[in-house]
Amino acid sequence: MAAATPSSYSVTIRLHTSPDYAVVGRVATVLAEQGGIVTAIDIADSRHDRLTVDVTCSGINVDHTDGLVEAVESVDGVTVHKVSDRTFLLHLGGKIQVRSKVALKTRDDLSMAYTPGVGRVSAAIAKNPEDARRLTIKGNTVAVVTDGSAVLGLGNIGPEAAMPVMEGKAALFKQFADIDAWPICLASQDTDEIVRAVEMIAPGFGGINLEDIAAPRCFEIERRLRKSLDIPVFHDDQHGTAIVVLAALRNALRVVGKQLEESHVVVSGGGAAGSAIVTLLLAAGAKDVTVFDREGLLSRDDDSLSSDKQKLAARTNPRKLRGDLPDGLQEADVFIGVSAPNILKAEWIRDHMAKDPIVFALANPDPEIDPAEAAQYAKVVASGRSDYPNQINNVLAFPGVFRGLLDANAENVTTDMLIRAADAIAGVVTDEEINPSYIIPSVFHSEVADAVAVAISGEGKSTTGTPTGPIKVGSRSTAAPVDDTGILPRVR
Amino acid sequence: MAAATPSSYSVTIRLHTSPDYAVVGRVATVLAEQGGIVTAIDIADSRHDRLTVDVTCSGINVDHTDGLVEAVESVDGVTVHKVSDRTFLLHLGGKIQVRSKVALKTRDDLSMAYTPGVGRVSAAIAKNPEDARRLTIKGNTVAVVTDGSAVLGLGNIGPEAAMPVMEGKAALFKQFADIDAWPICLASQDTDEIVRAVEMIAPGFGGINLEDIAAPRCFEIERRLRKSLDIPVFHDDQHGTAIVVLAALRNALRVVGKQLEESHVVVSGGGAAGSAIVTLLLAAGAKDVTVFDREGLLSRDDDSLSSDKQKLAARTNPRKLRGDLPDGLQEADVFIGVSAPNILKAEWIRDHMAKDPIVFALANPDPEIDPAEAAQYAKVVASGRSDYPNQINNVLAFPGVFRGLLDANAENVTTDMLIRAADAIAGVVTDEEINPSYIIPSVFHSEVADAVAVAISGEGKSTTGTPTGPIKVGSRSTAAPVDDTGILPRVR
Repeated sequence: MAAATPSSYSVTIRLHTSPDYAVVGRVATVLAEQGGIVTAIDIADSRHDRLTVDVTCSGINVDHTDGLVEAVESVDGVTVHKVSDRTFLLHLGGKIQVRSKVALKTRDDLSMAYTPGVGRVSAAIAKNPEDARRLTIKGNTVAVVTDGSAVLGLGNIGPEAAMPVMEGKAALFKQFADIDAWPICLASQDTDEIVRAVEMIAPGFGGINLEDIAAPRCFEIERRLRKSLDIPVFHDDQHGTAIVVLAALRNALRVVGKQLEESHVVVSGGGAAGSAIVTLLLAAGAKDVTVFDREGLLSRDDDSLSSDKQKLAARTNPRKLRGDLPDGLQEADVFIGVSAPNILKAEWIRDHMAKDPIVFALANPDPEIDPAEAAQYAKVVASGRSDYPNQINNVLAFPGVFRGLLDANAENVTTDMLIRAADAIAGVVTDEEINPSYIIPSVFHSEVADAVAVAISGEGKSTTGTPTGPIKVGSRSTAAPVDDTGILPRVR
Repeated sequence: MAAATPSSYSVTIRLHTSPDYAVVGRVATVLAEQGGIVTAIDIADSRHDRLTVDVTCSGINVDHTDGLVEAVESVDGVTVHKVSDRTFLLHLGGKIQVRSKVALKTRDDLSMAYTPGVGRVSAAIAKNPEDARRLTIKGNTVAVVTDGSAVLGLGNIGPEAAMPVMEGKAALFKQFADIDAWPICLASQDTDEIVRAVEMIAPGFGGINLEDIAAPRCFEIERRLRKSLDIPVFHDDQHGTAIVVLAALRNALRVVGKQLEESHVVVSGGGAAGSAIVTLLLAAGAKDVTVFDREGLLSRDDDSLSSDKQKLAARTNPRKLRGDLPDGLQEADVFIGVSAPNILKAEWIRDHMAKDPIVFALANPDPEIDPAEAAQYAKVVASGRSDYPNQINNVLAFPGVFRGLLDANAENVTTDMLIRAADAIAGVVTDEEINPSYIIPSVFHSEVADAVAVAISGEGKSTTGTPTGPIKVGSRSTAAPVDDTGILPRVR
């Protein structure tokens, strides 16, 4: 297995030694011998009888880092005083903050931003509620809502423990699409209560991003909210994933010269992500998609399936395949895994799949097959991991999707929008650039969010990035003071 | 009546004239003649046949400003092209935004702030939920919650129209106490639903500021939430007002040399603010407080009172006064109005009240008596207005109150805290400074929020203001990387 992203296992070890710098040299040597990567050595304090030294180093994973600390402790003349963890330090105090866009330094400022001036703005909105999108933050805000029931690979860890993830998501919304997102972590896992709570908080938001809510509850919550709310509702674990998968698949098929319409696709995993992928692939033109789940290959012939799975089977598996995963892979062009670690064997790719197999092994953090192993026989391989080529990462989709929805004052999300978003992401990879190791742009590719936003909103242009002035509607800054504000003679 | 705060009625008039600057001079003259205050004249565009000029000016109120625009239109050779309103421009796009406190520029950043690194932080909180206050924004956030049922003087205008006020409040939280507050405007006015919604969103917040919720619903909501939540719940319209009133009264009594314990106090208005003022005055030592409301003077002898009013009467009016306001004012030392405009006559102050009367006329925007008129006979006068001395403004209380609560990781608010907060505000006015026109510090007084925070938290010191670095817990910056973080050997 390749090294994990090192920085997330980086620690700073504060140690005491005699005032002999040679000891510090021995520490560095020991760390290097154990495979640690030393990134900084800082003298925190120097006295005539003692040095206090901060050694910052990275290991491959938690156990490795623990071993590095033990190795340092074993060095003669060294006492480890404290160990702190860069990732935890970064999260201390949380990752987002609120800023005022208006000055509040003088009485004059206060009387416009707050009482009495604010009263006229509120009265204007009471008269014309549509104005809330222009005169409040509503036009640029998204609630990132979870019940903490299916957080990353950690499962049902509850709302408090979900906060670091939702804050991170909010930070990404800002970074990639200049959207003001706020985490709402709900202390209930009851469908009715969740639906009602989101309905109640909706007036202050321009969109709802559902996140890490367990299936099948997430389906009903999304369906009901889409019906009752007049702002778009988007379950990222479903649709964000589906968009990026379709984008990557479009380009993988470009690489191997096949058509989606004629390809046999096997999707492993019939949960939130799997169902959404199936729906989007079918809407995009796929004709032969088969789902593999705990029950085996889902087929409409199978009476033993639950009603959810029956619905999925009814839309898929036109050849009514039955059996296990290898049976489904016979002559399959594409494998898409959103299921469990290590369930796909390399020899099945070699022996069962069609020519130029495409394998997306997206289970997190451990994929259905090690990408390097899959690459022995597959023509194109993608995974959720950042340490291999072709990372399928939702960050490619959700910022641009909501940017586009907000720019368009959209009231809902359509399947057509999702397909346009996928095509926009795929289109960022040019004919000159495309190859088996580059079917999907990097999450840091500067064009992605704008391309997605424009595809969603149908507008000619969308500007993301840091706002340039205090007066802003959505992503567009207006030139003060008069002409471009859209406020016609007196809004009162 | 004195001029209202001018800037909240400031407009920019874009006009076209022939290219003759004398015309612009005539415009300025006409505006001055009509009592307008011209703050800027900008040439927006100059052509050989036309000037485009932006004239920014302030009037006393909306009608006055309308008249100014008409006066400009009447000037020969001038066409008014567009009029825009500085207050509305300031609110365009809303007044707050979200910022990331962490860099998200590189893969390394992403892997610590988001996946996979964030998973370890979430797992740590799942194991020890108390860590949410340190490792997420919870320790520095407040939800500003309303149902839009009693917004300013506007009444029941609903959640969307309440947004500008709640955003303004959030901006004030940031400005005065470096607190990250987020507006939550609820689309329901049902007590049970409001209580449940706030309980559900509570995990992500360190405190709940209830705002502009109509009485008597607000009492039950606060009471139930205080019982069910482990974070402090504070209804600003009640307790914020009560704190500032008590602070001002302490100093007013200093000025006239009287004791609270021996003073007769009449409170006009038995709603949310009035009830809270009564409770706090009694807790602070007042012995003789009488409430005047629609029913007349509230007395325990009066069987016709509603149960809410009976409860209030049972705690007040020890002399069992009956009748109208003038009857209550007989030998009263203090009048506190949180009721309705123009209900107090100057001659009642002169003829009925005790020596050196204290009059707080706090109804907004129009007080119980014009402060200038009251000052003819009262020794000390305070109002809610910024254009008279002694403005009673909640901004003096709520930022410091929540700063203190968050710094102390408080689970609830006590009456004792409220009294300490009031005394802290009063104490900012020194013996050298105090006089009848200066019983309460300005909202911009730099010591107020800190003094209140320290009084609430019981801590020796509290630092408010702009954070100095990315790693922050509450208002305290920690020195990276190790010692002061509070993270002991490995939090995992």
